[in-house]
Amino acid sequence: MSIIMYDLAGADPALRFSPYCWRTRMALAHKGLDVETVPWRFTDKDVIAFSGQGRVPVIRDGETVVSDSWAIACHLEAHYPERPSLFGGATGQAHARLINAWADAAVLSAAVHLVVRDIFDVIDPKDRDYFRSSREQRFGMTLEAVQAEGRAHRVAAFRDSLTPARLVLRAQPWLGGAAPSYADLILFGTLQWPRCISRFEMLAPDDPVLAWQERALDLYGGLGRAAPRHP
Amino acid sequence: MSIIMYDLAGADPALRFSPYCWRTRMALAHKGLDVETVPWRFTDKDVIAFSGQGRVPVIRDGETVVSDSWAIACHLEAHYPERPSLFGGATGQAHARLINAWADAAVLSAAVHLVVRDIFDVIDPKDRDYFRSSREQRFGMTLEAVQAEGRAHRVAAFRDSLTPARLVLRAQPWLGGAAPSYADLILFGTLQWPRCISRFEMLAPDDPVLAWQERALDLYGGLGRAAPRHP
Repeated sequence: MSIIMYDLAGADPALRFSPYCWRTRMALAHKGLDVETVPWRFTDKDVIAFSGQGRVPVIRDGETVVSDSWAIACHLEAHYPERPSLFGGATGQAHARLINAWADAAVLSAAVHLVVRDIFDVIDPKDRDYFRSSREQRFGMTLEAVQAEGRAHRVAAFRDSLTPARLVLRAQPWLGGAAPSYADLILFGTLQWPRCISRFEMLAPDDPVLAWQERALDLYGGLGRAAPRHP
Repeated sequence: MSIIMYDLAGADPALRFSPYCWRTRMALAHKGLDVETVPWRFTDKDVIAFSGQGRVPVIRDGETVVSDSWAIACHLEAHYPERPSLFGGATGQAHARLINAWADAAVLSAAVHLVVRDIFDVIDPKDRDYFRSSREQRFGMTLEAVQAEGRAHRVAAFRDSLTPARLVLRAQPWLGGAAPSYADLILFGTLQWPRCISRFEMLAPDDPVLAWQERALDLYGGLGRAAPRHP
């Protein structure tokens, strides 16, 4: 029986763009598990009320319900130990938690300033009031102002946030070493988010992170590359 | 036979303060290896010329010479696999490389603005011209100006750089999980540096990173806590 995954979708239900859902989608593919994704919108809180919270990803794996991309990765590793490992052991898992926190606190939090208005363009019309009001309250300015200010002044800071990955990729092909680990999927998901909803050039053309991203787009039969993007 | 380690020292040869040397010192202790440290000053380039470069830490382990704290940690893990692991396997090691790069690019690079003038006070008189001119060239201002500007405007940015560690330490006692790994020693060394040369309060008193640092100071018989500090 397939695992059911609630996956953030845009007005086009094929457009899937959540950085956290991409981490989960890739982790399921890494484990070689069958998944049936259910398109979900920000305001479909009732649809995932069974998970006891209001955000995706949520998976239903048989009788087990898990929310939060980190918790889902830990669940998959614990319940499918015979399949390819996401973490390579307990210490690798502990270290990946720091990488997850770094991707959220440093990379994702810088990226949002560059694309938040573009997100508004792709989401379902029923989500727009919620998205605009919640984000404008968080940033204290309009979506248009956040993105304009971001692109004018924060591109370098976003690219700088990736310096640790850049240094590592000089020395090894994947953040996981010789082969991809969940660390790669964390960063991949973080960058798949702007990639799917915006044409803004997040990275310089000669950035080694871009070369790594291209390799990651080919993983698992090209799952990331096949994903629909906003025209 | 003990491993010989060249260790950055101040005017007081007992004052050891390099963040990189502390990573190595703690890694040797984690492995339970005997070490004989040699106090070294910035301008003693000829003393470590045998290593083919001019920075510490450098270790001599029998016939093997290794420089660079990351390379030394990898050497110790490969050559003493029967002793307590620093990385917990290949994936843990790959992930630790990103944590090492994060500590350097985000944490250490923010910290230097808060203490660089205090370093000048503790180094050997023969190092002072070199230290002042190399750092002032890097920052484009005097040591005094860097530190004054840093303490006026960059304390929050330094503390923010530690957000990933703070998030992890909510969920697990060590960055390595249930027990310390080299990830802990990386961050410990990074913070031992300001701790040994300055009385400036880098962290807020209620910061969970401070509680973790206190636990880390007790590791290996209190090696970090016993270290002399600048009066």
